[in-house]
Amino acid sequence: MAYEAWTATGPGATFEKRSLDRGPLGPEEVEVAVEHCGICHSDLSMWHDEWGTATYPAVLGHEVIGRVAALGPMAKGLAVGQRVGVGWNCASCMHCRQCLSGDQHLCESAQPTIAGHLGGFARSVRAHWAWTIPLPDDLHAADAGPLLCGGITVFNPLAAFASPNSRVGVVGIGGLGHLAVKFAAAYGCEVTAFTSSESKFEEARGFGAHQVVSSRDSEAIRSLAKSLDLLIVTVNVPLDWDALIASLAPNGRMHVVGAVLEPIPVSIFPLIMRQGSVGASPTGSPVGIADMLAFAARHDIAPQTEHFPMSRINEAFAHVADGKARYRVVLDADFAG
Amino acid sequence: MAYEAWTATGPGATFEKRSLDRGPLGPEEVEVAVEHCGICHSDLSMWHDEWGTATYPAVLGHEVIGRVAALGPMAKGLAVGQRVGVGWNCASCMHCRQCLSGDQHLCESAQPTIAGHLGGFARSVRAHWAWTIPLPDDLHAADAGPLLCGGITVFNPLAAFASPNSRVGVVGIGGLGHLAVKFAAAYGCEVTAFTSSESKFEEARGFGAHQVVSSRDSEAIRSLAKSLDLLIVTVNVPLDWDALIASLAPNGRMHVVGAVLEPIPVSIFPLIMRQGSVGASPTGSPVGIADMLAFAARHDIAPQTEHFPMSRINEAFAHVADGKARYRVVLDADFAG
Repeated sequence: MAYEAWTATGPGATFEKRSLDRGPLGPEEVEVAVEHCGICHSDLSMWHDEWGTATYPAVLGHEVIGRVAALGPMAKGLAVGQRVGVGWNCASCMHCRQCLSGDQHLCESAQPTIAGHLGGFARSVRAHWAWTIPLPDDLHAADAGPLLCGGITVFNPLAAFASPNSRVGVVGIGGLGHLAVKFAAAYGCEVTAFTSSESKFEEARGFGAHQVVSSRDSEAIRSLAKSLDLLIVTVNVPLDWDALIASLAPNGRMHVVGAVLEPIPVSIFPLIMRQGSVGASPTGSPVGIADMLAFAARHDIAPQTEHFPMSRINEAFAHVADGKARYRVVLDADFAG
Repeated sequence: MAYEAWTATGPGATFEKRSLDRGPLGPEEVEVAVEHCGICHSDLSMWHDEWGTATYPAVLGHEVIGRVAALGPMAKGLAVGQRVGVGWNCASCMHCRQCLSGDQHLCESAQPTIAGHLGGFARSVRAHWAWTIPLPDDLHAADAGPLLCGGITVFNPLAAFASPNSRVGVVGIGGLGHLAVKFAAAYGCEVTAFTSSESKFEEARGFGAHQVVSSRDSEAIRSLAKSLDLLIVTVNVPLDWDALIASLAPNGRMHVVGAVLEPIPVSIFPLIMRQGSVGASPTGSPVGIADMLAFAARHDIAPQTEHFPMSRINEAFAHVADGKARYRVVLDADFAG
């Protein structure tokens, strides 16, 4: 079976189905036959080469669910036919301090699945065995893709900095944020959702938020002063940062996972007075992803998705680019034969 | 014996010795006969009312070493004659969440020793029993004062975020910074000192720094990229924040204890990529101070001090204001009789 992929030849170019030659499978690589793959906002950023790291021909898609089709001779811990997921990273060096400490996602040489590599909007995707994460049997595979990037990105700070006693805020109710609310609620936390869109207030409550506040209403944010232990920011637009930091409780942390482009002006006095912090993180490690998938399966947490056949990828990207996704779009592979 | 204190009647006014009436000792208060009291930079800020929180007549001084002279009827755990210290806070509510959790320094009602209260440049100072910290016997009392504010301020982040395996940076070699270097070296860490003053390079090494870098040399800071686990910033002037954040290792933290007035512009991408954070904190809790004093005694750590008799307080303040203190000035009480 030839390798086929939905390919863009330049920034923002229409995706076209092409056959590409990838050469032989590496000794530690796994070939994953793609069944489903989510569209993440960073696929759009990479598509338009907003970060200057795109490579062409580009095959995007890094929220992959599929089955192991082939294993390199040195691949460990997996079996052909097993259902797995691949996320933002598809490999790392495995021998640096970070890799050997279980922080493989912080490896200097971590390989993004969609830059310098061929991603998941394809018949198959290749990944290092350590980054090919087995899926729990009781997870609904068709909707699980967005957990591999969006899910772990918000689960990572929750696992590191929250306990069931925490008061957690989530800014932005989109692909990442709606999962953050679901995870935080299942964690047992008191959850406050912030969204700029009144139309999402009720939905946010449905995801488990105990209260919803407009992220554009500085006065409403100020009224939460000193009440949040962890504030996960999933958006990438400027906000009233002073008001948000003021909402942190003593020892509170504002944790940014959205790729905010403008520097955030952090006033030090309020941070000193509450012994607070502003942190950030990328996705997560293989063990972090495995824990997140197990938690999602145990608590029946799934992204709210819309499905398109992969052959309608251009339409699906336009839908996401228009901000219409509620809340994550998943493409279902429909290659012939 | 009348209560006498070195008193300023308005912002920046010359200190004059005056007798003041304080009323009776509170039931939970301790009267501490002052032997020594350090001058901290925040005494100067309060003297000039830079933060708008000063009260007059002002009696400054919050790095007090003395002996218990009297105990209110409800004061716990102390004996008359015992040697004690009092730092930035002299009281807190004792019943809020922070107080009951051991984070008394984060109490909303924490009482600063030098605002709305009469401080340590006086014959005696009063403090709540919990904030009156017993001094270890083997600590050199005459020089211990600066530990009570400057010392705990830098020990607090070290205790919270460093281990003996940590690579610790200290920005600013002054009253706080020189103690931070000594503490971090005694903690067993690899220590990098940053100072704007070439004249302090050798001294910083003497305090235990393994390397010294100019805090004004962006290129030199950039050369440390991704090498520091904890970077303690003790100054309050603008720095090359991007270069300093770039010096953080994966999972690294820049921790600010200097009262930086301008917001720090924090670029989120570099923070995401290293899973880093920017934090801040005030002084520390009573238990934190006790731990710090025990550590200082065990490792023979003392501030490098210059002593003035308290009656030369105006000269001593000018010396500190001129940036001439190497590295902390302590006033020795010399009231008559």
